[in-house]
Amino acid sequence: MSSFLSTAPRPPKPRNRGISHVMDSGLPLSAVRGLLESAAEYIDIVKLGWGTSLVTKALDEKLALYAAHSIPVVCGGTLFEAAYARDLIDPYKRWLTEHGITHAEIADGVVAIPREVKLRLIADFATDFTVLSEVGSKDANALVAPYQWVGWITDELEAGAWKVIAEGREDGSAGLFRASGEIRSGLVDEIAHGIDVDRVIFDAPTKAAQAWFIRRFGAGVNLGNVAPNEIIGLETLRLGLRADTLKSILLG
Amino acid sequence: MSSFLSTAPRPPKPRNRGISHVMDSGLPLSAVRGLLESAAEYIDIVKLGWGTSLVTKALDEKLALYAAHSIPVVCGGTLFEAAYARDLIDPYKRWLTEHGITHAEIADGVVAIPREVKLRLIADFATDFTVLSEVGSKDANALVAPYQWVGWITDELEAGAWKVIAEGREDGSAGLFRASGEIRSGLVDEIAHGIDVDRVIFDAPTKAAQAWFIRRFGAGVNLGNVAPNEIIGLETLRLGLRADTLKSILLG
Amino acid sequence: MSSFLSTAPRPPKPRNRGISHVMDSGLPLSAVRGLLESAAEYIDIVKLGWGTSLVTKALDEKLALYAAHSIPVVCGGTLFEAAYARDLIDPYKRWLTEHGITHAEIADGVVAIPREVKLRLIADFATDFTVLSEVGSKDANALVAPYQWVGWITDELEAGAWKVIAEGREDGSAGLFRASGEIRSGLVDEIAHGIDVDRVIFDAPTKAAQAWFIRRFGAGVNLGNVAPNEIIGLETLRLGLRADTLKSILLG
Repeated sequence: MSSFLSTAPRPPKPRNRGISHVMDSGLPLSAVRGLLESAAEYIDIVKLGWGTSLVTKALDEKLALYAAHSIPVVCGGTLFEAAYARDLIDPYKRWLTEHGITHAEIADGVVAIPREVKLRLIADFATDFTVLSEVGSKDANALVAPYQWVGWITDELEAGAWKVIAEGREDGSAGLFRASGEIRSGLVDEIAHGIDVDRVIFDAPTKAAQAWFIRRFGAGVNLGNVAPNEIIGLETLRLGLRADTLKSILLG
Repeated sequence: MSSFLSTAPRPPKPRNRGISHVMDSGLPLSAVRGLLESAAEYIDIVKLGWGTSLVTKALDEKLALYAAHSIPVVCGGTLFEAAYARDLIDPYKRWLTEHGITHAEIADGVVAIPREVKLRLIADFATDFTVLSEVGSKDANALVAPYQWVGWITDELEAGAWKVIAEGREDGSAGLFRASGEIRSGLVDEIAHGIDVDRVIFDAPTKAAQAWFIRRFGAGVNLGNVAPNEIIGLETLRLGLRADTLKSILLG
Repeated sequence: MSSFLSTAPRPPKPRNRGISHVMDSGLPLSAVRGLLESAAEYIDIVKLGWGTSLVTKALDEKLALYAAHSIPVVCGGTLFEAAYARDLIDPYKRWLTEHGITHAEIADGVVAIPREVKLRLIADFATDFTVLSEVGSKDANALVAPYQWVGWITDELEAGAWKVIAEGREDGSAGLFRASGEIRSGLVDEIAHGIDVDRVIFDAPTKAAQAWFIRRFGAGVNLGNVAPNEIIGLETLRLGLRADTLKSILLG
């Protein structure tokens, strides 16, 4: 970036904080190429949303493209839940390994998994994979109390998760968000009070949510479920180069 | 699809049910190439939305791309309505034929066409084209009664339509939907009670609507006005590989 | 456009009215190529949104692509505001010139700039650049009175702006729009009463807003912040080839 304007430096990849976690919900290979050409340095990890990896033609070519830019890939938590519900955890792990996938998401947003089983699965996957676990229901009506979020996140980190994703769905309609899309700010405060936020990835699929978290925690907050065509926009939010964060970040 | 997880098989193309009808609202050729490369087998028919075919450069190249993947193309109903209002039905049919377009949409969502005239036009087009007719106003305030929908759909199928599209607009704001986006479920029930749903394509431009119809009618429901970048997502909904249908389809 | 249906002719580029001003919020080069291949003749000017130009890799290649289609480029007003707030106006102008950028947006939607300073900056930039100035706050709660909009637009045109952009944000949530997205039609009436609308670009990032302005002012209205993937759709709205304007434009 040659510029007339200096912005606060961002740490280089691989980053431990300030992570942008991007949702690939079925991009064609040509779109992946375009995305990486323009924005690879701003993408820390890519999620192949829910079970899209199973209907993606040329999956290995797609994985190779991301690997060529040193971007790890993780399959969506719903795929893990399907494997769990069908009693296919070992075949799932073998399938991940065969495809060279190094990260795994452990979730229970749809399928009920007893807490101790989820923690054991996190520990188990953590011996072979970098684990992202997910907390918070996909059900817009399931308002889990903040103290429970904090307890669950703490337990899952202790069990071996690298980061815990605070659920927001891909449209910002549950978990961290009210059904209206509004952020449950009291919940976020409780999480930040009880846990090192560098260990949390906040689902933030809308510009409004991204800007809110950046104003709240700064450019180094970890954000998840970012749409591919908004990764450049997110980077400008982190740098204070967009109206929503200009005052608080660049001029702050 | 090589996988560790088996899903219910989908019938191969050309399908008579479980049709995904995709809206091309002006895609560049390069985007069409990417779409077909990644998802051609999940696309049953493409609509060139409303009158976009007239402002699409290299229209014949675009048509050739779809044809190379055996995907039929249909122009939007609004173009038919414009031709009707301008008394250009015969030139319109010649134009379609010149471009090798084999399907035609007959609609009256904007322009008032007497019922008997619409039925005559359906029968007339059906001698040379595969006809999709459309029922339901584009006007969010025009709440047509369910028994009328059923009567109209029945008549249009008898007149020669291959399938009837139940209107929802490209943003899910009219016809099957209330202005709020909510589905008129009582209306859908009446349609399903009176008509073979394999003969109906339900406009379902949002994920929520797609999931709702799949939970209601199963993976084999015909869905219309699907955005190109959501066709992979729709296929996962049909297979139960997405949170919204995991329980009802894959684990059902 | 070879067609069976004649539409009212649009003036060729470069146009002084009927301008479509497109928002590039970080498109990959390959997407720019696709966009220009399919729709260059419908694009009058491209805005590199807010500060995205500073995080765009291969910026000069992108600028060359637009230049090859004779499409001028302007950087977003937020970048100007950042330069102003940091006292970097001269470096900003040099940076624009070094990159061959001929148009400049002068805005004060986020940073407070005294009126007389803004007018002086417009006059100053106008000696070297084609100036688009922007009126209307990005703050959804800042309801500027219509007579003030008219006064400000008049002053900025007199100071040397080529066109004045009536702010609507990239999501239609402020300025011309209420927070609900509804158009402040009384405000638009006042602007049209007091000012030659050919000198105004109305931000219209949604189809509903685009259709509203075209029904109100005809195909020759200037519209801003149009999404790249909706430029074909906008052209059909201008020609009356879409349901929303079929009656008022094509059949009017």
